[in-house]
Amino acid sequence: MKKMINGVESLLEESLNGFAKAHSDIIQFNRQPHFVSRKQATKSGKVALISGGGSGHEPLHTGLVGKGMLDAACPGQIFTSPTPDQMIAAAESVENGGGVLFIVKNYAGDVMNFEIAGEMLDCEHQTVLVSDDVSLPKDHSTGRRGVAGTLIVEKIVGAAAEAGATLTECKALGDRVANATASMGVALTSCTVPALGIPTFDIADNEIEMGVGIHGERGREPMSHTSASDIVEHLAKAIDDDLKPQKGQKALLHINGFGATPLMELYLMYDLAEKYWAARGVDVVRSLVGNYTTSLDMAGASITLTLLDDELMTLWDAPVHTANLRW
Amino acid sequence: MKKMINGVESLLEESLNGFAKAHSDIIQFNRQPHFVSRKQATKSGKVALISGGGSGHEPLHTGLVGKGMLDAACPGQIFTSPTPDQMIAAAESVENGGGVLFIVKNYAGDVMNFEIAGEMLDCEHQTVLVSDDVSLPKDHSTGRRGVAGTLIVEKIVGAAAEAGATLTECKALGDRVANATASMGVALTSCTVPALGIPTFDIADNEIEMGVGIHGERGREPMSHTSASDIVEHLAKAIDDDLKPQKGQKALLHINGFGATPLMELYLMYDLAEKYWAARGVDVVRSLVGNYTTSLDMAGASITLTLLDDELMTLWDAPVHTANLRW
Repeated sequence: MKKMINGVESLLEESLNGFAKAHSDIIQFNRQPHFVSRKQATKSGKVALISGGGSGHEPLHTGLVGKGMLDAACPGQIFTSPTPDQMIAAAESVENGGGVLFIVKNYAGDVMNFEIAGEMLDCEHQTVLVSDDVSLPKDHSTGRRGVAGTLIVEKIVGAAAEAGATLTECKALGDRVANATASMGVALTSCTVPALGIPTFDIADNEIEMGVGIHGERGREPMSHTSASDIVEHLAKAIDDDLKPQKGQKALLHINGFGATPLMELYLMYDLAEKYWAARGVDVVRSLVGNYTTSLDMAGASITLTLLDDELMTLWDAPVHTANLRW
Repeated sequence: MKKMINGVESLLEESLNGFAKAHSDIIQFNRQPHFVSRKQATKSGKVALISGGGSGHEPLHTGLVGKGMLDAACPGQIFTSPTPDQMIAAAESVENGGGVLFIVKNYAGDVMNFEIAGEMLDCEHQTVLVSDDVSLPKDHSTGRRGVAGTLIVEKIVGAAAEAGATLTECKALGDRVANATASMGVALTSCTVPALGIPTFDIADNEIEMGVGIHGERGREPMSHTSASDIVEHLAKAIDDDLKPQKGQKALLHINGFGATPLMELYLMYDLAEKYWAARGVDVVRSLVGNYTTSLDMAGASITLTLLDDELMTLWDAPVHTANLRW
């Protein structure tokens, strides 16, 4: 294993120290317990948006804390849920009279720990669960996994909260965006978790893992490595079958790299995916291309489509100022 | 070789098509010959900034075209200089009465082709050559290579041009920033150029390549893989020896990922490098951490330090609106 680290134990802390220093104009880092929160005070009564999850997906979620998006993020150890004390401390720090909305990716550990935190919180709170990964069936025993669509939920609800939406409105909006969003990913290589030191799964030189999760969970099926056109068609079809967009539907198309796939290839995927939906009468009016919900050093990428209406588009376009997403 | 492509021949064109579609609000893509330019007209008399170079370093340079930065970028094939017809066509398209400033990374092919283009241009023009890689000695036969410091030059001169600086002023400023900037990188793995299909260089599992170039040129020396602290110390010392900053000097610290190194590790490097200079009385007041001058799928990173004065800091802070750099 070749990593730019000093040791498995200190990696997260040292990384967060660097993050906190590099972005001290936007965020502050609470060391005990770990959470990142906005530097600037928010308007009284604003709903506080909190997310979190295992580390190793950066910039998700710490890089998305700031004006127009999250109020706080709780990073767990790599691919490990944060603990309830982190969420409680973050909530107590950023709650500002409008209540707290947790935005949670659907993984058993995350769901449980955010639930425990919620039960122990004194303030009003709600949870939006994101489960956008269509590689698993809708009736899967633990539900579908939350993947790159989470960023879309955080951005859109973040804009609404900034504009004064109530907790009930933010919760309803988050559920609506989550339901209008579907994702699927493919891995060309495995990632290597530092504590393990070897690749999470084996993959042959001529194979790819279709429907992989963002922790290197094996996917729907291994497939022979094929052209980008075939891969994009496969991913896009699964998403399209799930969302069933009508002709004339406006959409946001997000190509998300898992970490080790060059931007050149992500833009090529964007070209192909945009054509796929254009041929079906879907109008891709907004885009996001880059490494946002990563899986350490995995090569591969996911496609996310969110069906937009005018309200969602306006909220997507609203200003955002975080460490790693800005406009 | 596992790449998300349809074929080696079509990769660049398909990728640029996707880039152009995803960012059609900011840039336009000229297909024959290839160049990317700003969508919105600039103020009459503004100096036009043009850069370019081989592809495979994205977001450099195409992702840096837009308000406050480049007026146009000319992408060559992967790791291959663009040709003079691209630069001439770009210059004729974006020249707006203020003359043209070429910002060129110091590689023989790039230098030659920008020179030929300059000779064939009718309008006033100047060139800023960036050669910030301190892994080569100052008196190296072809000079030092231009690497991640190029972005810093483009950002700062871009802000000045936007604010109305003349061609002579932009040229002098560019030279000044280039001289105040030094970089050095390390590779943990090689990149794989699609047309070649195999890694550019061999590197043992327990070795790293210190002083590597952004095309996978072998570096100053192979070293045993060691801790991030040792690696950062090694890189930072070479930069510090070159720039010789005084105590109290303000600086911009840029940690640049080569493509496959997780953001977590880049922020960890930022923490260590900031500490290195803090211990020497250098005040790191600005930061940029992420994958900006990449080398396809290479794992590794470079450190860049730019010595700042108040003018350079103000220009660095000025608004920028490109596909891949915004504030």
